[in-house]
Amino acid sequence: MKKLKGIAASDGIATAKAYMLVQPDLSFETTSIEDPEAEIARLDAAVAASKLELEGIKKKASENLGEEEAQVFEAHLTILSDPELFGQINAKITGEKVNAEAALKDVTDMFIGMFEAMEDNPYMQERASDIRDVTKRVMAHLLGVKIPNPALIDQEVVIIAHDLTPSDTAQLDRRFVKGFITDIGGRTSHSAIMSRTLEIPAIVGSGSATADIEDGQTIIIDGINGEAIIEPTEEQITEYQAKAAEFAALKAEWDLLKEAQTLTLDGKEFILGANIGTPKDVVGANDNGAEAVGLFRSEFLYMDASELPTEEEQFAAYKEAIEGMEGKQVVVRTMDIGGDKDLPYLPLPAEENPFLGFRAVRISLERQDIFRTQLRALLRASVYGRLAVMFPMIATVQEFKDAKAVFEEEKAKLVAEGIAVSDDIEVGMMMEVPAAAMIADKLAKYADFFSIGTNDLIQYTMAADRGNERVSYLYQPYNPSILRLVKNIIDASHAEGKWTGMCGEMAGDQLAVPLLVGLGLDEFSMSATSILKTRSLMKRLDTKKMEELAQKAVNDCETAEEVLALVEEYTK
Amino acid sequence: MKKLKGIAASDGIATAKAYMLVQPDLSFETTSIEDPEAEIARLDAAVAASKLELEGIKKKASENLGEEEAQVFEAHLTILSDPELFGQINAKITGEKVNAEAALKDVTDMFIGMFEAMEDNPYMQERASDIRDVTKRVMAHLLGVKIPNPALIDQEVVIIAHDLTPSDTAQLDRRFVKGFITDIGGRTSHSAIMSRTLEIPAIVGSGSATADIEDGQTIIIDGINGEAIIEPTEEQITEYQAKAAEFAALKAEWDLLKEAQTLTLDGKEFILGANIGTPKDVVGANDNGAEAVGLFRSEFLYMDASELPTEEEQFAAYKEAIEGMEGKQVVVRTMDIGGDKDLPYLPLPAEENPFLGFRAVRISLERQDIFRTQLRALLRASVYGRLAVMFPMIATVQEFKDAKAVFEEEKAKLVAEGIAVSDDIEVGMMMEVPAAAMIADKLAKYADFFSIGTNDLIQYTMAADRGNERVSYLYQPYNPSILRLVKNIIDASHAEGKWTGMCGEMAGDQLAVPLLVGLGLDEFSMSATSILKTRSLMKRLDTKKMEELAQKAVNDCETAEEVLALVEEYTK
Repeated sequence: MKKLKGIAASDGIATAKAYMLVQPDLSFETTSIEDPEAEIARLDAAVAASKLELEGIKKKASENLGEEEAQVFEAHLTILSDPELFGQINAKITGEKVNAEAALKDVTDMFIGMFEAMEDNPYMQERASDIRDVTKRVMAHLLGVKIPNPALIDQEVVIIAHDLTPSDTAQLDRRFVKGFITDIGGRTSHSAIMSRTLEIPAIVGSGSATADIEDGQTIIIDGINGEAIIEPTEEQITEYQAKAAEFAALKAEWDLLKEAQTLTLDGKEFILGANIGTPKDVVGANDNGAEAVGLFRSEFLYMDASELPTEEEQFAAYKEAIEGMEGKQVVVRTMDIGGDKDLPYLPLPAEENPFLGFRAVRISLERQDIFRTQLRALLRASVYGRLAVMFPMIATVQEFKDAKAVFEEEKAKLVAEGIAVSDDIEVGMMMEVPAAAMIADKLAKYADFFSIGTNDLIQYTMAADRGNERVSYLYQPYNPSILRLVKNIIDASHAEGKWTGMCGEMAGDQLAVPLLVGLGLDEFSMSATSILKTRSLMKRLDTKKMEELAQKAVNDCETAEEVLALVEEYTK
Repeated sequence: MKKLKGIAASDGIATAKAYMLVQPDLSFETTSIEDPEAEIARLDAAVAASKLELEGIKKKASENLGEEEAQVFEAHLTILSDPELFGQINAKITGEKVNAEAALKDVTDMFIGMFEAMEDNPYMQERASDIRDVTKRVMAHLLGVKIPNPALIDQEVVIIAHDLTPSDTAQLDRRFVKGFITDIGGRTSHSAIMSRTLEIPAIVGSGSATADIEDGQTIIIDGINGEAIIEPTEEQITEYQAKAAEFAALKAEWDLLKEAQTLTLDGKEFILGANIGTPKDVVGANDNGAEAVGLFRSEFLYMDASELPTEEEQFAAYKEAIEGMEGKQVVVRTMDIGGDKDLPYLPLPAEENPFLGFRAVRISLERQDIFRTQLRALLRASVYGRLAVMFPMIATVQEFKDAKAVFEEEKAKLVAEGIAVSDDIEVGMMMEVPAAAMIADKLAKYADFFSIGTNDLIQYTMAADRGNERVSYLYQPYNPSILRLVKNIIDASHAEGKWTGMCGEMAGDQLAVPLLVGLGLDEFSMSATSILKTRSLMKRLDTKKMEELAQKAVNDCETAEEVLALVEEYTK
């Protein structure tokens, strides 16, 4: 018996045999070739074979996982038909006379590197992952090796992998796959998100699962605590069966909360919202009992396009989301694109430190043409429900005033044009720059609300890139420094009669929720699938007690570890 | 008559004719060559000619500017003899069959880019600038064009340039050069530092001096306010003559303060320290009446070497600085090297956001071998005067405790070995990460003192890379958010009976000093040449009034502009 720890990515408990989903050896040697045309033909054949295979996987995915999940393979097929990408690969084969493997790797590495650099941009991250996935498939065909086909699994298993790609997960048959454990990845990695969609337990970022576990070993996976037991004892199996039953009962209880208000034990009301990325996500938000959309990321409009989205395109997207929420508030964040992107229609210089660079509202205030188009689309959509607008990366009072002034100008223009606009749009801001958090009292005079973006707020406050493994130990949501900033923001908004939400990952973190209830956060916005669990948790929390907890954490604790110990003490 | 604004880089007022120091056209075409050996011979000839020329400039520089200033050309000559650099250039000529110009530019651009990326590292910045300088010289010889020779100037002039390289400034004869104005650069650029060494007025970062000014026009340069007047009227010339006389009187007054204590109008005492980069800088610190070294950057030991500095090398350097200060405190900052460097003996992975990466104490805590060697050298040097040690980039209580524990271990080991160690070494930390500033009250229980590093503190708090022009408007030392953090740090240290210094640029900023006096900062550490001016300024400040100013700035102001207006109101 051996234990393994990792990041709890998806709730649930299961026991099954390990299935090692190990990647084949795709290494190759770079060689000079004589006949570029023959080499390109070889590549074309590999691409054609990959396309055929992907069509099959796509079919299987739509049967097992639903039409929407199968869409990712449409993206893969599109990549395989991308003239820009393959044009560059072919040019490399012809120009440098290298073999197709080397040309494929060089060119795709460049694209992957470029997209991966945009670490705060989930769309480009996904694109990088897609290209990596497609490249593996084509490379396997070039090298004549087989890539594993989990679609053939026909008994109950826990999948063990270094990482899971979209095509891996799409091939997983829910009847047989009882959970999975990966070496790498975080709570927002593709595999983690997929596990929550599939509602199977998952542990990511275990570090060594593929090294520690052997094919066929019995595994207990506890996705609630992020723990796995390799070759458990009979007692442990029995113990975990009981835990699994307990969890199933809990889930049934959560489902009953879909239509319920969010209330603490002593009856204090909170709002639980969903973070969404496209208007389609409204369905999941409603299905999970969201009382609002606390964050509608508008980036998909900019990232999934080859030119700037028009006012009409944006209007349609905002209208769909606002209407879909049927009168519940939808908070749209204006364009939050970083300076590390390379959109063909918006050339920006490369930056040494893109997270500290030209991004979000900084771009909007300079490129007011883009900003005004977005605001007009939002204003026009406002009459279809309850819209709120917020600006990302505000650091100073001046920036907020400037952004708000542009908003008011566009509103006045629309009114003058006789176009209907709601008179009840709240205009707020993201709280993610430490400077803004420090002068929240001043900003609260102008902003209608704050929404704390913990991912950025933490990385700036700790001066640690959250995507950089070397300093990941400094990404500490429970550090008293972060809690003090959060408290400062909430208190400042309340002093001016305004409200504060949180749309960063911390809002759905079950250990953070007690602290945030104690700090008086008004709205919690999270992945839709975390809402019911959080509503259930809140039912068990006493506000007064949580206030005492928060006060102690903020005043007395020196470290994140001390805060966590205190949370455990107050919630056990 | 036309006015020009820029950054005030060096005090003083002068009137003289404009001398356009314009760079020659060094553009070239990349061509294929047939005979790599002949091309390398051509390059060798250009290098030899450059060496000859540099020897001459070095001689002239040592006559006009002193031995120390001439040292930079030693560095240039070393670059011209660098087998690594020229090995790569030659390999490119041979391997790619390109002309020497193209090979020279490609290879040097790579090195320059690499070094310039280390924006917080003055040593590597300087190296980048040196390589650029040397490259220009060799390129000019390759292309057969002349580069300007300011050494030939024989009448009083104000130099107008896009930027000034070390070899440009070294050739300036103080008898004739009355000031200079550049298009680019900031207060810490080479040209700015050089102007302060030469004690001539200078304006940097004017944006358009080379476009707005023509050769031979009369120029009034006001380095105090960063303003220039092109073709002034007779009245303006008279007016500025009076101002120049006033300034001369002021300087004479400053010189009288060399041995004086630093006291405000109402007799409150402050400590004015110098920031130094090498032990040699102690001379300048003492000459300018420094009461301490508030920051001894230890990076030169790591950057100017091809392998890790030994304990002995470090001991000698620390001892020299500590002895040189004759009992006045010397605060040594332990290794503050960023993750964006590529030291051959310390390979580190490339990072997307090096300012938010693996750097400073984060490296020291992981690479304890390096850290312990440095601490041992420091401990052994401590008996030669009054040493203090501080750790850079501390973000959490745990990091400080960990670093301090290593210090205590090494101290105990030395004592056990019978080696003399001072019992009076203060161990403190840099305050430059917002998280640390937020929990300064907790850190003050463990640290003997704080030293505020404003450059980093501002860039993290504002989430704006200070080297990125697109977001430079967010580098706001006077933003109330920054002042609140500074206040929090100072108050927290005082509550525990500790002291706070500041070693960032803000400490020597004449507009910030009144605020910092009001906030109760204990020690101000700055460029040695700013000390006397600051001591003189403090003599005119009333502590109570400055406290009122600081309180208003912290509590009432919304923007940096409002703070600056308040400072002017309180100090006029």
